[in-house]
Amino acid sequence: RKSYKVTVLPGDGIGPEIIGVAVDVLRLVGSQEGINFEFTEKLVGGAAIDELGTPLPEDTLTTCQQSDAVLLAAIGGYKWDKNPRDMKPETGLLGLRAGLGVFANLRPAVVLPQLVDSSTLKREVAEGVDIMVVRELTGGLYFGQPRGFRQESNGERTGYNTMVYSTSEIDRIARVGFETARKRRGKLCSVDKANVLEVSQLWRERVTAMSSEYPDVELSHMYVDNAAMQLIRNPKQFDTIVTGNIFGDIISDEASMLTGSIGMLPSASIGESGPGLYEPIHGSAPDIAGQDKANPLAQILSAAMLLRYALGEENAAQRIEAAVMGALDKGFRTGDIMSPGMEYVGCKKMGDIVLETL
Amino acid sequence: RKSYKVTVLPGDGIGPEIIGVAVDVLRLVGSQEGINFEFTEKLVGGAAIDELGTPLPEDTLTTCQQSDAVLLAAIGGYKWDKNPRDMKPETGLLGLRAGLGVFANLRPAVVLPQLVDSSTLKREVAEGVDIMVVRELTGGLYFGQPRGFRQESNGERTGYNTMVYSTSEIDRIARVGFETARKRRGKLCSVDKANVLEVSQLWRERVTAMSSEYPDVELSHMYVDNAAMQLIRNPKQFDTIVTGNIFGDIISDEASMLTGSIGMLPSASIGESGPGLYEPIHGSAPDIAGQDKANPLAQILSAAMLLRYALGEENAAQRIEAAVMGALDKGFRTGDIMSPGMEYVGCKKMGDIVLETL
Ligand SMILES: CC(C)[C@H](C(=O)O)[C@@H](O)C(=O)O
Ligand SMILES: CC(C)[C@H](C(=O)O)[C@@H](O)C(=O)O
Repeated sequence: RKSYKVTVLPGDGIGPEIIGVAVDVLRLVGSQEGINFEFTEKLVGGAAIDELGTPLPEDTLTTCQQSDAVLLAAIGGYKWDKNPRDMKPETGLLGLRAGLGVFANLRPAVVLPQLVDSSTLKREVAEGVDIMVVRELTGGLYFGQPRGFRQESNGERTGYNTMVYSTSEIDRIARVGFETARKRRGKLCSVDKANVLEVSQLWRERVTAMSSEYPDVELSHMYVDNAAMQLIRNPKQFDTIVTGNIFGDIISDEASMLTGSIGMLPSASIGESGPGLYEPIHGSAPDIAGQDKANPLAQILSAAMLLRYALGEENAAQRIEAAVMGALDKGFRTGDIMSPGMEYVGCKKMGDIVLETL
Repeated sequence: RKSYKVTVLPGDGIGPEIIGVAVDVLRLVGSQEGINFEFTEKLVGGAAIDELGTPLPEDTLTTCQQSDAVLLAAIGGYKWDKNPRDMKPETGLLGLRAGLGVFANLRPAVVLPQLVDSSTLKREVAEGVDIMVVRELTGGLYFGQPRGFRQESNGERTGYNTMVYSTSEIDRIARVGFETARKRRGKLCSVDKANVLEVSQLWRERVTAMSSEYPDVELSHMYVDNAAMQLIRNPKQFDTIVTGNIFGDIISDEASMLTGSIGMLPSASIGESGPGLYEPIHGSAPDIAGQDKANPLAQILSAAMLLRYALGEENAAQRIEAAVMGALDKGFRTGDIMSPGMEYVGCKKMGDIVLETL
């Protein structure tokens, strides 16, 4: 009987509710597939600030590093928004990404046939959208040095950050982009701002150079402003997108909202080796926390991604995905994806239905 | 009889076609309103590179600086995409913005009742959208120092840019944001990434501080990734948005594409004093250049903005806007906004119809 160590990070807001459901789902599918999970729960984000005075306790990072995979819910909330940077929940998440070396963030934006009407896009535009955004996650503007505040001689203050990429950082994320595109529909669009930024010029140069190794992948380049438009004009033109950290933050969130059901979208963050980080793309939704209203499906699908990418347990992953589709096919909907004629359920109930369907 | 000096910059691609139409419109409305225009045409962008070996000839900048307003069409094209930075059309545009000190870029995104079906959004989501994006235009990541390429000791190369704002840069654009919101529906949303970036923390701090001077304006803050989502989920929640240069580039293009008719959208770039820059938000569309297919209406509406903001000629501005609406009401459409039952016209013909309607 295989056994895996999974660190569980409930985080903030709706985190504890949805991750509880996902852990139950993992347990059940484990018993069906002969997999044993050793779950260790740790604090991160606002919860860790409140209990331990830091958004990323050392013990949390060490435990994550020593596990086979990390399942995270979501962090953040209004409560900590005014904290200084080292006491923000977000800083804990960024430290976790850096500490695990998970430089590649895979964010699918898929319009499910059952939920096509959740999209604010016209049906004919939304139907069939299936995009994978590969976002660089441990470099660029988020981590670039120098950064900070400065007092100018004229009495003014300035705030500054640095957008920087090295050739090796670009190469390793570009490779994930090409490999991902190759396993999908063979189209890779690299998004940058090379008409203005030097960092983007280097990005474009390296991505272009690598394309000779992938003759089966059709590479295109798009400026980030144009990409933001094209995603709305005709999202079906995209297969795989590869881009830097801040552009990926914006573009992947835009792409996910095209589906109209971000409560359904999981993500995977992976490195060269070591445990990956699996989390829903949605936030911690503090306004509905503790009310049993959250949609747990993105968290459950994140557990499926964990099984597939971190543990190579493809069968178990597919079982979970089928159970989620089954729950939708039976007509059950949480509030965020509710539509006329469907049956409204809360977080806990949706979890039970997925468990039953499993 | 009043007389104004207007510098006309046709630029590249469809630029010459559409700006010719807009100049005719200005001439006619001038004769109706007793305004004399002294037009001086100059080269900028790719056209200037080809003829004079630089994207922003000194003579062009000086002429612009000495005029009352500048009407620009669009610059750029595949042809110059591989040029080094100082020989890119975009560098000419950035130099023009900096040289004119036009730090505030006003970009309306309005869904016209006649064109609501052009949007890829569902009718009930698109109908009534009326957003003004106030984008900082002469600072931030576009102009921040240091920038460039570096050879690291380990043999790697890096490319880097700096996102930097000073308090005075933030204050002056925030003020434009508040003033703009005050003249509209009184809601200002400031977009940043203050949960990660120091430059955004300073931004948020200064914008918040200024809000006490504008008790009649309701200020909110939104992270840029969330803004990219909310624009798609429910664009009607926005009135005025104020943001930095690169976020504004992305967010304003996204907002404009929500309308489905970017061929209709003008923009104004203004400074503390001196001539402003008026241009359509769409690009130079090299693929349809010279084919009489371009939509000249955004350029014509840019001329109306020029009359309003640069010259204070409100009557003339309204005449032009009414004529454009009139042309649409009569059912005439260029290819980009064509829909069943409407009459297809080219660029020249659309111009003639606006002139007649005037
Ligand atoms: C919470 C925040 C720091 C984070 C980011 O910007 O990366 C989030 O928006 C995300 O995309 O995972
Ligand atoms: C052409 C380019 C340099 C420019 C920009 O990024 O500012 C354009 O996209 C715009 O928004 O006016």
